[in-house]
Amino acid sequence: MVVMTPQAGQAEIDAVVKRLEAVGVHAKVMPGELTTAIGAIGDPEGVRALALEGMAGVDQVIPISRPYKLASSELSHHEPTVVKVDGRRVGAQETFCLIAGPCTVESREQTMEVARAVQRAGASMLRGGAFKPRTSPFSFQGLGEPALEVLREAREETGLPVVSELTDPAHADAMAEAVDVIQVGARNMQNYGLLEVVGKLGKPVLLKRGLSSTVDELLMAADYVLKEGNENVILCERGIRTFETATRFTLDLGAVPYLKLHTHLPVIVDPSHASGDRRLVEPLSRAAAAVGADGIIVEVATDPDSALCDGPQQLYASDFGAFAKAVGDHASLVGRRLA
Amino acid sequence: MVVMTPQAGQAEIDAVVKRLEAVGVHAKVMPGELTTAIGAIGDPEGVRALALEGMAGVDQVIPISRPYKLASSELSHHEPTVVKVDGRRVGAQETFCLIAGPCTVESREQTMEVARAVQRAGASMLRGGAFKPRTSPFSFQGLGEPALEVLREAREETGLPVVSELTDPAHADAMAEAVDVIQVGARNMQNYGLLEVVGKLGKPVLLKRGLSSTVDELLMAADYVLKEGNENVILCERGIRTFETATRFTLDLGAVPYLKLHTHLPVIVDPSHASGDRRLVEPLSRAAAAVGADGIIVEVATDPDSALCDGPQQLYASDFGAFAKAVGDHASLVGRRLA
Amino acid sequence: MVVMTPQAGQAEIDAVVKRLEAVGVHAKVMPGELTTAIGAIGDPEGVRALALEGMAGVDQVIPISRPYKLASSELSHHEPTVVKVDGRRVGAQETFCLIAGPCTVESREQTMEVARAVQRAGASMLRGGAFKPRTSPFSFQGLGEPALEVLREAREETGLPVVSELTDPAHADAMAEAVDVIQVGARNMQNYGLLEVVGKLGKPVLLKRGLSSTVDELLMAADYVLKEGNENVILCERGIRTFETATRFTLDLGAVPYLKLHTHLPVIVDPSHASGDRRLVEPLSRAAAAVGADGIIVEVATDPDSALCDGPQQLYASDFGAFAKAVGDHASLVGRRLA
Amino acid sequence: MVVMTPQAGQAEIDAVVKRLEAVGVHAKVMPGELTTAIGAIGDPEGVRALALEGMAGVDQVIPISRPYKLASSELSHHEPTVVKVDGRRVGAQETFCLIAGPCTVESREQTMEVARAVQRAGASMLRGGAFKPRTSPFSFQGLGEPALEVLREAREETGLPVVSELTDPAHADAMAEAVDVIQVGARNMQNYGLLEVVGKLGKPVLLKRGLSSTVDELLMAADYVLKEGNENVILCERGIRTFETATRFTLDLGAVPYLKLHTHLPVIVDPSHASGDRRLVEPLSRAAAAVGADGIIVEVATDPDSALCDGPQQLYASDFGAFAKAVGDHASLVGRRLA
Repeated sequence: MVVMTPQAGQAEIDAVVKRLEAVGVHAKVMPGELTTAIGAIGDPEGVRALALEGMAGVDQVIPISRPYKLASSELSHHEPTVVKVDGRRVGAQETFCLIAGPCTVESREQTMEVARAVQRAGASMLRGGAFKPRTSPFSFQGLGEPALEVLREAREETGLPVVSELTDPAHADAMAEAVDVIQVGARNMQNYGLLEVVGKLGKPVLLKRGLSSTVDELLMAADYVLKEGNENVILCERGIRTFETATRFTLDLGAVPYLKLHTHLPVIVDPSHASGDRRLVEPLSRAAAAVGADGIIVEVATDPDSALCDGPQQLYASDFGAFAKAVGDHASLVGRRLA
Repeated sequence: MVVMTPQAGQAEIDAVVKRLEAVGVHAKVMPGELTTAIGAIGDPEGVRALALEGMAGVDQVIPISRPYKLASSELSHHEPTVVKVDGRRVGAQETFCLIAGPCTVESREQTMEVARAVQRAGASMLRGGAFKPRTSPFSFQGLGEPALEVLREAREETGLPVVSELTDPAHADAMAEAVDVIQVGARNMQNYGLLEVVGKLGKPVLLKRGLSSTVDELLMAADYVLKEGNENVILCERGIRTFETATRFTLDLGAVPYLKLHTHLPVIVDPSHASGDRRLVEPLSRAAAAVGADGIIVEVATDPDSALCDGPQQLYASDFGAFAKAVGDHASLVGRRLA
Repeated sequence: MVVMTPQAGQAEIDAVVKRLEAVGVHAKVMPGELTTAIGAIGDPEGVRALALEGMAGVDQVIPISRPYKLASSELSHHEPTVVKVDGRRVGAQETFCLIAGPCTVESREQTMEVARAVQRAGASMLRGGAFKPRTSPFSFQGLGEPALEVLREAREETGLPVVSELTDPAHADAMAEAVDVIQVGARNMQNYGLLEVVGKLGKPVLLKRGLSSTVDELLMAADYVLKEGNENVILCERGIRTFETATRFTLDLGAVPYLKLHTHLPVIVDPSHASGDRRLVEPLSRAAAAVGADGIIVEVATDPDSALCDGPQQLYASDFGAFAKAVGDHASLVGRRLA
Repeated sequence: MVVMTPQAGQAEIDAVVKRLEAVGVHAKVMPGELTTAIGAIGDPEGVRALALEGMAGVDQVIPISRPYKLASSELSHHEPTVVKVDGRRVGAQETFCLIAGPCTVESREQTMEVARAVQRAGASMLRGGAFKPRTSPFSFQGLGEPALEVLREAREETGLPVVSELTDPAHADAMAEAVDVIQVGARNMQNYGLLEVVGKLGKPVLLKRGLSSTVDELLMAADYVLKEGNENVILCERGIRTFETATRFTLDLGAVPYLKLHTHLPVIVDPSHASGDRRLVEPLSRAAAAVGADGIIVEVATDPDSALCDGPQQLYASDFGAFAKAVGDHASLVGRRLA
C-alpha cells in the first residue's frame, strides 16, 4: 500500500503506478478524502525492491502482507510441524518438552551428575554448551571438542538426546555427529551464513530469538533454515532487551500465543537467560507452560557446595524434581504431558 | 559508591571525601588496582543531592541502596499487605482476585449485562471506565458522572465492588463516593499531584505501571500514595513499550515474581491492554495466575452481535465462564482460589 | 486499510464492508493474491472506534492517515507557526532560541547570578523551576511560589522572558501571572487535564516529549492544547528511554527534521536532561543547532565553588559565553541567529 | 561491589568473603546503615565467574570497573588511535572522513558514475556492498565476487580507498585483496568468529554498532579485533532499535561524545541506515559533524531517472557536492577538514 502526501498531484500518482506496472505489479488507485492510496498487488519482495518511498509525492509505503513465507501457517502448510527427536515429539499439541542441563560442560563429573538428575526428574532432552559465544573476549569460551565427547557419554548413559549450540561453521560437522539438536543462539539469529550451514546439516534446529529481534524477524530467520529443505526448526523465546534492568532481559510470553497463531513451527521458552535470577526461573517456567508453549529449556547446576561455578540463574539439581513436577502440572492443565 | 577515574589523584579523592563528610555522610576509601572507589554510608537522598558526578576525577556514582522506601519489603514491614475490599482480600497468599468488566461504561444496559455475566462466573470485582484518558483529543472520553451512577447500580445488583479510573483531581470526591477502588492509569503513574490526592482519599488504590516505567519507579510512585498514610495500594503490571509491535505492548510477567520479592504490596496483571488481541488474553491470563500474581484485571464486552463497539482485546461475556474456570485452575495449582 | 486473513471467506469480507458502511465509511474491496484488503475511506476516528480487529477473518487494521490533526503541516496550515515571546520569535527560519538558566530556583542570589550570566552571553530566555516533579516523594520538590517571585525579579533586571514548568492545575493562575512561557514536562505530556488547562491559559506553551512517547503521540498531545485555541506551542525533544544506559536518555535528534517535515510548530531540543553529563551537553547542543532545531534549552549552574548543589549535567555560568558562541556558530551555518 | 540483603547475617557475609579470597580477590567489608557491602578488589573477570549473585544473602553484584580493556582510553593507551588508509587519517583531531558510495554494487556503470561523483565532491573513501546480509532469504543478496572487481576498478580510476562489508569468513581472502577497509555490519557485531577472522587479516576494520548493543558492548566487540594485534578499528554509530517507528532506527548521537571520552578509537556515524529517509540524511550528517564525530558514511545513488533501484535513504549523486560542502562547513567549525 503506497500512501501519497496530501500535496501529491496526478503526475506523481501516475509515476508511481507506472513504476509498479513496469515490474508486473497490478496497481489500484484509491482516492481518499485527504490523500490518495495506491494498492500494489503482486510480489511483495519486488515491490520492496522498488523503494517507492524515494519517489516524489510518496508519504509512506506500508507492507500489507507479512514478510515471512515458509514459516507461515497461512502461506505454507497449516498443520503444526512436529519435530521428532529420538522419539520425543516437539510441537505436538499433547506434549511438553523439558530440556535441561548445565550452562556449559565444565567437566565430565559435573555434566554426568546434572544429566542423571534431570533424567530422573523426567526431562525430555539434555542441554550443555561446548562452544560458548561470550561478549568479552577475555571470558571463558567453553571446552570445545572435548565437551562433545562428554555430551556423547551423557547421552549414552541417560538416553537423553542432546542440544548444543553451534557458533562457527567450522565446528558444524563435529557438532552434527555428536549432538541431536543444533542450537543457534540469540546473537547469531541473523548470522545468515550460519543459518544456511545449519539448514544443510539436516538435523533439528533450535533457533533462539535475537535480543532485539521482532517475532517477524525470527520467522524470517527460520525461513533461511527452511529454504534449505530442513523443516525441523524449533523457535525459542528467550527475553528481549528493553529499558527495564531489574531482570536481565524482558521475557516476552505474549510472543508465544502470537507465534502459535502465525507459524506452524514449535515454540519453546528459555526462562533462565531471560531472568538471570534463579528465584524467577520457576515462576516463569510455570507461566511458559500455562501460556501454551511447546516446552522450555533451563539451566541446571550441581549443588552449590560441589559446584566450581554456578551461574545465578541456574536451578539446583537437588531441586529439579520438584521443579519439573510444578511445571508439568501447569502443562497438564492445557492438555500436555512431558515428552 | 563513588568510582574515581584511573587518572584521579589524591587531591580529587580528598575533595570528594570532604564534600561527603560536610553533609554528615561517612566516607570509606577503597583503593583498587585501577581505580579508587569511595563508599558513602548514610542517607542516599542526601548523597544524590550532592551530584558528585559533577566533581573532577569522578567517573561514576553508583547507588547501592534501592530508591523506594515505604513500598519495600526489606525496609518497611516484611509481611505482605492484604488489601480488603468489601470482604475480598487482595494480596493474601491463598486468594486470586479476578476483576472484570467493560472497558468503558457506554450504557446502563451494556454495563448491567456484562456485570451479571462476570458475577455469575465468579469475578471478585467489577471494572468500568467513567472518565477515559485518550491519546487523541478527538476520541470518545467516557460518559463521566452519569457512568458513576450506572456503576453504583451494578454494584447494588451484583454485590461486586467497583474499580474505576480517576484522571483528574476535580472528580476525586464524586469518584470516592461511587467506587470501591480508585485506579491510577499507566499514563498518570508519575502524575504526582494525582497520586497525593488519591493517597488522601483513603480508598484502596490500583496503581498501574507506566508504559516505560521501571519496576523501581513503580515502587517509588507507590511511595507517593503510601506516604499519605494510605497502605491499600495494589500494583498492576500492564505491559511496557518495547521495539516489538506484533503485540500492542510487551507484558512483563517477570516483573511479578521480582516485585513479590521486593515489595509487600499485592501485584496483579492486566493482559487485555498489554496484548490488544482477544486471542492472547486467555493464554496470558493463565500465565499470570501461574507466575504467582495476586489477580488479573480484564475487559469483557457483551456479545459481538449486540455490542455497539467491542474493542479487539475484550473477551466476550458468553465465553467468560470458561475463561474464569481456566484461569482459576492455574491459580489453584499455586494454592489460590478466587477471592 | 483492513487486511483479511488468507482464510477469510466472502461472508467475512461482506460483514466488514457492512459494518463500515453502517457508519457512513466508504469501503473499497481489493482482492490480492493471498489476502483481500479493504480500504476504508472516511473519518479515521470513526473507523478506529469500530475496532474491526475484533471481527472474524480480520488479520490487521492498518491506519493510513496520521492520527494528529491540528499540529499537522499537511492537514492544518502549511506556514510555520512563529511563537512570539516578548519580541523573540521562536520557529522563524532565521532565528535560533537559546533558553538557559538554573534547573531549580534555589535562592535569589543563585538565580540572579545565573540570569545575569546567561543574559550577558546572549540567551533568548531564562529557565528556572519553581515546582519540580520528582520520581521519589522524598526528593526536594522546589521552592514553589516564592520561586516565582525570584523569577519575576530576574526578568525585571535582565529583560529575559521566563520559562517555568507547571505541574498542577492548582498553580496555573499564579504561574500564568509570573512567567512568559508555561512548560509541560515529559512526565505530564499525556496528562490531558493539565494540557487543557494550559491550552486555556493562552500563554505560549513549551511541551516536552514523554520519555517513551512517539513523535506522533507528541503531536497528538499538542492537539490537546491547540484545540483550546492556543496556537503558541513549542515542541521539545529531550531524550527517550531505550536499552542504552551509558547516557541517561537517548537524545533523538532525527526527530527534529522529522517533526519539521510534518508539523508547523517550532521544535527545540533539551540536551541537558537527555545526557545527564555536562561533558556531552555542548557537543549535543552544537548538533541540535546543526540538525535544524529552532532552539535549545539548557541548565546552567553558578560556579562549582559557590554552588550549594550542581547537577552533573549543568553547564557552569563561567563557561556559558563560550558555549553560546559555539552553538551560535553552528546555527549561523544553517541561516539562523540567536533570537 | 557485592551488596548483601538487609537480612543477611554474619555467616553469609563470611561465606562471600571466603569465596572471594579463595580465588585471590581481596575483600573489603563495608557495613552500612541498612545493608553491608563488600568491595572485591582484583580481576573483574574472575569475580564475575564466581556468580556471587547465586549465594545466600547476596542482593546485587555491581561491577565497578568497565568491561572492555584494549579499547579503553583509560586502561590502554591514552593517545587517540589514528587509522591510516592510503594517506587518509581517520581519528586525527583535525580530519573528518567522508565515506560515500552506492548501497550495493549493482553494475559497473552505476558504481563508476557514483564513484566519480563522490570523488569530485571531495569524499575520502568509496563504499559499496558486494555481499549483502538480508533479513529475508528471498531478498537480493549482492553480486558477490564480480562486485569486488568493479570496486577495484573504481578505486583505480578515482584513487579512492574502498570500504566493503565482509559477511562470511569464506570471502575473507578475496575481500582482503580487493578492498582497503573491511566493514563488519551491525548484525555481525557479536559474531565473534568473524571478528577474529577480521582481526587476523590486518586490514583496517569499520565496526558497526549492533541494533541493540550498548556502547560498552561495542567496545567489547572491538576488543575481539584488537586482541588479534589489529589496532586499526573504526567504530560506527548507525542507529539503535527503540520503540519509535517514525524513523527506521534512532540515531544515538550522544554515543559519539561518550565514546570519544572512553575510547582511543575513531568514531564515525552512518545517518543513511539510521533514518531510512533521504530528507533526514543531510540534517543528521551536519549534526554528526557538529557533535564531534571523526567522519560519516553515507549512501549515494545515481540520479532517480537513470537508477534501476534507489533506496529511499540514498542521496542523489547530483546533490552530493552541496551535501559535502554543508557537512564540511560544520566540521570546519570544530577544527576539522575533509580527510
